[in-house]
Amino acid sequence: MMQPSSALPVSSADIDAAARVLAPFAVRTPLLSSPALDERVGAKVFIKPEMLQRTGSFKFRGAFNKLSSIPHAARGGGVVAFSSGNHAQGVAHAAQILNMRATIVMPSDAPRSKRERTKAFGAEVVLYDRDREDREAIARDIADKRGATLVRPYDDPLVIAGQGTVGREIAEDMAALGIAPDIVVAPASGGGLIAGVATAVKARFPLATLIVAEPEGYDDHALSLRAGKREAHRAADRTICDALMAAIPGEITFAINSRLLTQGVTASDTEVGTAVGFAFRELKLVVEPGGAVGLAALLAGHIDARGKNIVIVLSGGNVDADLYARLIN
Amino acid sequence: MMQPSSALPVSSADIDAAARVLAPFAVRTPLLSSPALDERVGAKVFIKPEMLQRTGSFKFRGAFNKLSSIPHAARGGGVVAFSSGNHAQGVAHAAQILNMRATIVMPSDAPRSKRERTKAFGAEVVLYDRDREDREAIARDIADKRGATLVRPYDDPLVIAGQGTVGREIAEDMAALGIAPDIVVAPASGGGLIAGVATAVKARFPLATLIVAEPEGYDDHALSLRAGKREAHRAADRTICDALMAAIPGEITFAINSRLLTQGVTASDTEVGTAVGFAFRELKLVVEPGGAVGLAALLAGHIDARGKNIVIVLSGGNVDADLYARLIN
Repeated sequence: MMQPSSALPVSSADIDAAARVLAPFAVRTPLLSSPALDERVGAKVFIKPEMLQRTGSFKFRGAFNKLSSIPHAARGGGVVAFSSGNHAQGVAHAAQILNMRATIVMPSDAPRSKRERTKAFGAEVVLYDRDREDREAIARDIADKRGATLVRPYDDPLVIAGQGTVGREIAEDMAALGIAPDIVVAPASGGGLIAGVATAVKARFPLATLIVAEPEGYDDHALSLRAGKREAHRAADRTICDALMAAIPGEITFAINSRLLTQGVTASDTEVGTAVGFAFRELKLVVEPGGAVGLAALLAGHIDARGKNIVIVLSGGNVDADLYARLIN
Repeated sequence: MMQPSSALPVSSADIDAAARVLAPFAVRTPLLSSPALDERVGAKVFIKPEMLQRTGSFKFRGAFNKLSSIPHAARGGGVVAFSSGNHAQGVAHAAQILNMRATIVMPSDAPRSKRERTKAFGAEVVLYDRDREDREAIARDIADKRGATLVRPYDDPLVIAGQGTVGREIAEDMAALGIAPDIVVAPASGGGLIAGVATAVKARFPLATLIVAEPEGYDDHALSLRAGKREAHRAADRTICDALMAAIPGEITFAINSRLLTQGVTASDTEVGTAVGFAFRELKLVVEPGGAVGLAALLAGHIDARGKNIVIVLSGGNVDADLYARLIN
């Protein structure tokens, strides 16, 4: 039997608190409908468009909630984070708003637009080699030298609670529509978004099925859910989902996800490309590959949604123009 | 002194009636905020994203309202319309929903995606040469032969009332936020959208300034507003705003617009391209050139919005992938 969520590392009260912190700063994204998508998949689909959030992804929520929790006396040392791009922008922009210094450790192959946007928010960007260097060690070193606070991308209850406001808004809007979601889908890299979303949605709709979406081969959450313990994926190649390349679920996120999620689904790079193109042509939303993986799984028929009410989180829209041009053509 | 709007060809009660007709079928588009845009222009900007509407533009609203008004006895002959693309899709999709036959007369140089999408909604597409043939004559001929109802793109009170639901939703959402719009901007080709929007917004916010946005050279509304009578623009070249190429304001639309609008602004093709790219990078919305002309005028500094509450209607998002790729790169 599932224990009450108060026994988990993040409660819905924590998410309520994050929502109060975020209210004056974050965009409250709407819940969108697309008759074209409904017809295509034979379900009633609700889209949570987090590309409309500040910085172009949900990551601003967790970052801002975390940074806001740093005591004023500790803010002088600034913050440091490692990220392939969306968490980078979230932390950089949150720091900018809160007048804190931010240093971001990014892989040298991160999309150009993500690097440039991170700098535009006033952060210092330190590049590293994804294959040969340890980003956590680099970030910890900077944190030690500068007295900076390390802002983890997902394995932090305050970050998870911030991302959970996505789920809280979904639950609020579905309740206002008088419709119970049968299925809620969100992508995962380390699992912070889906953990927060699951916590908030389950608090209001305990019968909802929570599904985590991952790129094919990068299915560490799916593997871990099946195994009942954290397992790394075995991918060696790159995926176009640059935002979703974490090797293994977080400890805190998996403690939540292993209890609240029902299953994992995957989508191939080709299916993700199709979803990005579908979002361009039919939804008129700019979604990045990693943000589209749930939609990709739905369009590819990997989710049994026929006749159901399904919510799909499109988690971000930060994609380089040249890659985007290729994907929509 | 301005006469009450009840003396005009379309009243806010007509728009209320259209809203009731549309409610089960049209998407109620949200009003979006973008802190990045606010900061860029020094104003509080509200975006009405009509690319999220069925068919990818506001045109579905007017078309559906008009088609719904056709008596059942007259529906057998179907409908016929002439359009460069967005009205085409609106009429085709409305006819599809209402089980009517639709024939659309489109210029042979209309964007491929607009032609294909029109056909995908089940309409028969008849192409004509924009420079050598009279689309109205072709459409009237088809209407006569088949007993079809001609659905004008803008100069019809029922079409204008349908488009007015865009303004009604803007007014409703701004009222819910407790914010009075200082300025509301919408693009115009024949002027149906801005006429409907102005009618609905002025009914709730009489002090709002209504501005019509047009492509440079295609400024027939601006010219007509200044002259106090309908005047054609003098453009000879093409504009990338394929949706906004009408030569002269409609008679009915100008009867409304001449009374309710304050001024016209224009944007060059370059400024429009910049706005399409800005919407890609910062708003994460796919907007077509004609749909972006108001945003373009705002970003280019042609609208004095500093410190104000301004609503910008992004009227559509039907753009060919190859042109879009060029504009965002």
